[in-house]
Amino acid sequence: MFEQPTPTLHRDGDALLILDQTALPFHTRTLRLATLAEAVHAIRAMQVRGAPLIGATAAHGIALALLRESGDAALDRALQMLGATRPTAVNLHWALARMDKALRPLPPAARVNAAWAEAEAIRVDDAATCDAIGRHGLALIEAVAARRPGPVRLMTHCNAGWLATCGAGTALAPVYAAQAAGIAVEVFVSETRPRNQGLLTAWELAAAGVPHVLIADNAAGLLLMRGEVDMVITGADRIAANGDTANKVGTWLKALAAQAAGVPFYIAAPHSTLDFACPDGPSIPIEDRGAEEICMLRGIDAAGAIAELRQAPPGTRTANPAFDVTPATLITGIITERGVVEPAALAGRYPEAAR
Amino acid sequence: MFEQPTPTLHRDGDALLILDQTALPFHTRTLRLATLAEAVHAIRAMQVRGAPLIGATAAHGIALALLRESGDAALDRALQMLGATRPTAVNLHWALARMDKALRPLPPAARVNAAWAEAEAIRVDDAATCDAIGRHGLALIEAVAARRPGPVRLMTHCNAGWLATCGAGTALAPVYAAQAAGIAVEVFVSETRPRNQGLLTAWELAAAGVPHVLIADNAAGLLLMRGEVDMVITGADRIAANGDTANKVGTWLKALAAQAAGVPFYIAAPHSTLDFACPDGPSIPIEDRGAEEICMLRGIDAAGAIAELRQAPPGTRTANPAFDVTPATLITGIITERGVVEPAALAGRYPEAAR
Repeated sequence: MFEQPTPTLHRDGDALLILDQTALPFHTRTLRLATLAEAVHAIRAMQVRGAPLIGATAAHGIALALLRESGDAALDRALQMLGATRPTAVNLHWALARMDKALRPLPPAARVNAAWAEAEAIRVDDAATCDAIGRHGLALIEAVAARRPGPVRLMTHCNAGWLATCGAGTALAPVYAAQAAGIAVEVFVSETRPRNQGLLTAWELAAAGVPHVLIADNAAGLLLMRGEVDMVITGADRIAANGDTANKVGTWLKALAAQAAGVPFYIAAPHSTLDFACPDGPSIPIEDRGAEEICMLRGIDAAGAIAELRQAPPGTRTANPAFDVTPATLITGIITERGVVEPAALAGRYPEAAR
Repeated sequence: MFEQPTPTLHRDGDALLILDQTALPFHTRTLRLATLAEAVHAIRAMQVRGAPLIGATAAHGIALALLRESGDAALDRALQMLGATRPTAVNLHWALARMDKALRPLPPAARVNAAWAEAEAIRVDDAATCDAIGRHGLALIEAVAARRPGPVRLMTHCNAGWLATCGAGTALAPVYAAQAAGIAVEVFVSETRPRNQGLLTAWELAAAGVPHVLIADNAAGLLLMRGEVDMVITGADRIAANGDTANKVGTWLKALAAQAAGVPFYIAAPHSTLDFACPDGPSIPIEDRGAEEICMLRGIDAAGAIAELRQAPPGTRTANPAFDVTPATLITGIITERGVVEPAALAGRYPEAAR
């Protein structure tokens, strides 16, 4: 069982404590969310991020909302507001649907305690799911390690580590499992412009003592072409019924390069990321974010304070889609808590969800 | 004839004036290079950059070197030092070979004036070459404009505009030609991490009044997949005999996505970028640059001063290859001063160089 060095999210009485991911990797800062509005803001401003963690945060946001008012209208409003925070990651809607199903039949007075309990169950389930993903992914890493000496070289994109979940992570769960099993690994970490979540991945891996190499997103292709990578593993924000997968923008480019280079490309994701109601990739809504993410650069100054610099003048036109879609044909396998599944076999592995 | 708003490079008596591209797009600053060492530093530190401009700068660097001493040993030393500045762009070696051929037969006393004259000829030739590339590329843009209303939407990578040459640029020459011809264009500009040369492209296009959209490198795939781009045009640093092309790292990823999306992918390059002595892409040396380009971010602070922020701790391991190789099979055509040529037809179009 993987233990998070600092919990990404946990209940504290009538509030929710979250690790503020807009301060990472520079400062470790905990935020206290006490209201629905604060939970909505935390998701939208990416104080929490990562598809599974967004879902768990939204679930807790329902509990925060019901603290003040717990009738049907209040429940509907909370579901609507949280559901509108971010469009692409389906875990959000999955978690809200689970909360709705658990709470709707109850009398309003019983809903607050039930909401906290259901949100906690989602958190605990997510941690267990991450561990299972880690075990199944470990087998893939072991197979490479058995073939040749030296560390197994993985490439990832964005952050799909423990920071993105309530447990060990999705794409990084196999990495942590390999480390626990004594298998040497090395991880190529893409910067992941424009939000630079690769820095979160580097921070996680550094803290865990996992060797890693930070690269510009543009460099991923050459490293794959040169044969310097054994496999690519990324997380996912939504997997359609046919296996097409939305994930952080740039993932598709890595999948194309991996295919061209003959390197296996895996998606690691829990059941809450599967959306059998969505037939294929083109049906997945893609979030567009603002110009400032591209025009402004964020880091720490010489005094260690978080600061921003401008790289493009105000008013510069930008396009800033936050996700792209990797067609199922480029995905070697999806590492789920039920094993490594070919995209076309997903419905068979999750018959209860695919119905 | 395209006129550079500010010359990227020009002789001033016994010195060379260059536009300092490490200060752009924030400040327009001219540097005076008076010695071989200063020319070497300017190329290596990327005060000048872009394959054609690197070649022209090196040619002028020979003249600077010979000012002090003009015997064979001094010529050899200057050729060697300038040739070792950057490994990938072949225009550097092309320009140095041309200087060597022009100067070697001369008595040392005659070499200084001849060096200035030959360097100037390289500069003037490059400008004419850029204009011809612009004319041939314009035909491709006109063909799209004739097919449907609205601006022709191009995507580029890095900076292959006038800043990268002694004239109109390579990849952007057709854009400027289209603008001069009254054809509406719109250019998607990739940020081009880690050096962010996309900001140079945005600055050029803004100054010329060409509509453009700045994007994260990661976003290129989604925009192509969505059908929002009519063609991709990039520059090149070296084109091998079989048409495989080295260009700024990340170019291959765009070429893969363009092919998958059915969007034509063009390389724009002058004869000085062709290397028929190099059989194929894997034979092209790829420059590796330092960690600081990835770990530090550069922009302007609130007071408008150029400043840096750190995003990864000192000692972070990085891989920072500056170029990648796009296989000829992904290249729709190479826009040269002799027309748009399929990669396999290059030797036929340049028989004197291919011999």
